[in-house]
Amino acid sequence: MLKPLGDRVIIELVESEEKTASGIVLPDSAKEKPQEGKVVAVGSGRVLENGERLALEVSAGDRIIFSKYSGTEVKYDGKEYLILRDSDILAIVQ
Amino acid sequence: MLKPLGDRVIIELVESEEKTASGIVLPDSAKEKPQEGKVVAVGSGRVLENGERLALEVSAGDRIIFSKYSGTEVKYDGKEYLILRDSDILAIVQ
Amino acid sequence: MLKPLGDRVIIELVESEEKTASGIVLPDSAKEKPQEGKVVAVGSGRVLENGERLALEVSAGDRIIFSKYSGTEVKYDGKEYLILRDSDILAIVQ
Amino acid sequence: MLKPLGDRVIIELVESEEKTASGIVLPDSAKEKPQEGKVVAVGSGRVLENGERLALEVSAGDRIIFSKYSGTEVKYDGKEYLILRDSDILAIVQ
Amino acid sequence: MLKPLGDRVIIELVESEEKTASGIVLPDSAKEKPQEGKVVAVGSGRVLENGERLALEVSAGDRIIFSKYSGTEVKYDGKEYLILRDSDILAIVQ
Amino acid sequence: MLKPLGDRVIIELVESEEKTASGIVLPDSAKEKPQEGKVVAVGSGRVLENGERLALEVSAGDRIIFSKYSGTEVKYDGKEYLILRDSDILAIVQ
Amino acid sequence: MLKPLGDRVIIELVESEEKTASGIVLPDSAKEKPQEGKVVAVGSGRVLENGERLALEVSAGDRIIFSKYSGTEVKYDGKEYLILRDSDILAIVQ
Repeated sequence: MLKPLGDRVIIELVESEEKTASGIVLPDSAKEKPQEGKVVAVGSGRVLENGERLALEVSAGDRIIFSKYSGTEVKYDGKEYLILRDSDILAIVQ
Repeated sequence: MLKPLGDRVIIELVESEEKTASGIVLPDSAKEKPQEGKVVAVGSGRVLENGERLALEVSAGDRIIFSKYSGTEVKYDGKEYLILRDSDILAIVQ
Repeated sequence: MLKPLGDRVIIELVESEEKTASGIVLPDSAKEKPQEGKVVAVGSGRVLENGERLALEVSAGDRIIFSKYSGTEVKYDGKEYLILRDSDILAIVQ
Repeated sequence: MLKPLGDRVIIELVESEEKTASGIVLPDSAKEKPQEGKVVAVGSGRVLENGERLALEVSAGDRIIFSKYSGTEVKYDGKEYLILRDSDILAIVQ
Repeated sequence: MLKPLGDRVIIELVESEEKTASGIVLPDSAKEKPQEGKVVAVGSGRVLENGERLALEVSAGDRIIFSKYSGTEVKYDGKEYLILRDSDILAIVQ
Repeated sequence: MLKPLGDRVIIELVESEEKTASGIVLPDSAKEKPQEGKVVAVGSGRVLENGERLALEVSAGDRIIFSKYSGTEVKYDGKEYLILRDSDILAIVQ
Repeated sequence: MLKPLGDRVIIELVESEEKTASGIVLPDSAKEKPQEGKVVAVGSGRVLENGERLALEVSAGDRIIFSKYSGTEVKYDGKEYLILRDSDILAIVQ
């Protein structure tokens, strides 16, 4: 298993179609398009200058929207993942 | 439903015409033009270096003016939204 | 009415002539020229890293000089305004 | 009268000649040349992240040397002034 | 022996093949590709602005994934190592 | 006399020859070459974000080595000086 | 003698050969190559924003590896030294 460090999360990509199961459709525009994923593992959070460690706002299992072109691709046990910083996560799909 | 993270807000666009219902008219100039929107959901706020989480100044339902070209477009359940950081919000229309 | 957020202020432009009523004349030079305005509304101020919110140094009604080319133009109820950050304000005309 | 904001000061320019009254001569070199001025008014100072407001090191009446090309020119009541940040002031002439 | 300073770690490279022993396969894409390594020694951590020294999240012996092209190569006693900052470490392989 | 502000110091240049009195010789290389000087006056120091003013590490009379091309030249009472920030000082010659 | 300021250290270069006495060999690659040196003198450390001065992790006599192309060359009493910031030091050779 992969354990992300700091404020990083590991996600599985949810392939974007015109209309996904959760109802998100990415528009046809020149703007940066977000992508959808599912959180697999989260880091222990970043440390503030007062020494406090700040827990992430997302948990394993959450479906999220993140900024496209962010993160690093990795394959593990034959599956593809993406390692993101939590600041690249835009919203949780509830 | 979409829940924005940190200091982000989700808004519905209010289409800008020469003169909108709320009385805002965007001028004809070379300067960056603001746009109008309605807040749909707000994040829990950014965390200060002393560990305190700072609540946003806007709430769901507020009509706002924001900097054009800021934010990320997303469609959800067939409707278009924009995810902004609260620092891209210029003013509340009261 | 428009309520600016954070450290922003909303001003009415005072049209700059060679010599304005308040006695300010903008010089003929290659340097950045300031402009004059009147404060219409002020935000609640920016938040310091210790959580304290810092009140602005200007109030509604103040005549100010600000850096030209700063801020965002907006029309509201048929009148033109400019939304500035308070760091773009150079001085108060007393 | 003009009241500068924050860490800004308003100065009157002292025209630089080969040798000024106070004895400062600007050298003939490719380096950035400083200029001399007299402080007319000072702001209330910048605010530290602990909320404390830091008084300026210069007062009205001080003769100062500042970095050339810094600041913003303004005319008021027919006289020319320069609005500087105190970080552009190099030294006080005592 | 080499003792890294601050938030640095020293690692041995694990040569990346199409499929490594631990099951990580680096994908064929234009994105930045991570690499795998084994931690040999860790620094005492970076110091926060409150004076506290923050221990690293990795220990000697950990298998890690790090951002390719990060770090500095060094040979010591005939073996090749890489000196990284801990912020270049993406995840621990558990 | 000139009183430098904040973390600035005023120095007299010590002309660099192949071998100076204090034994410093500047090498013939493509690297940035340091220069030698003597401190004439020091500022009251920079202010930390906790409000404390940090005294400089150098005093009037110290011989120092500083980064070449740093600082601002000024003439006063017919003598040439250089105004530096203390962060441009590399070492004290003891 | 030279006393470095703040977080600076003064080192003597240890000429890099294919294989040095301490066993470090610099690899033949396009990556930035580190160099070896011996610490001659250390500064009193940098000051944190809480006013605390942070002692360096290296002491006079330590053999270190540092990032090539960092620091400033200086000759003193006929010997060549390099003045570095401690953040340019990668590791101590123990």
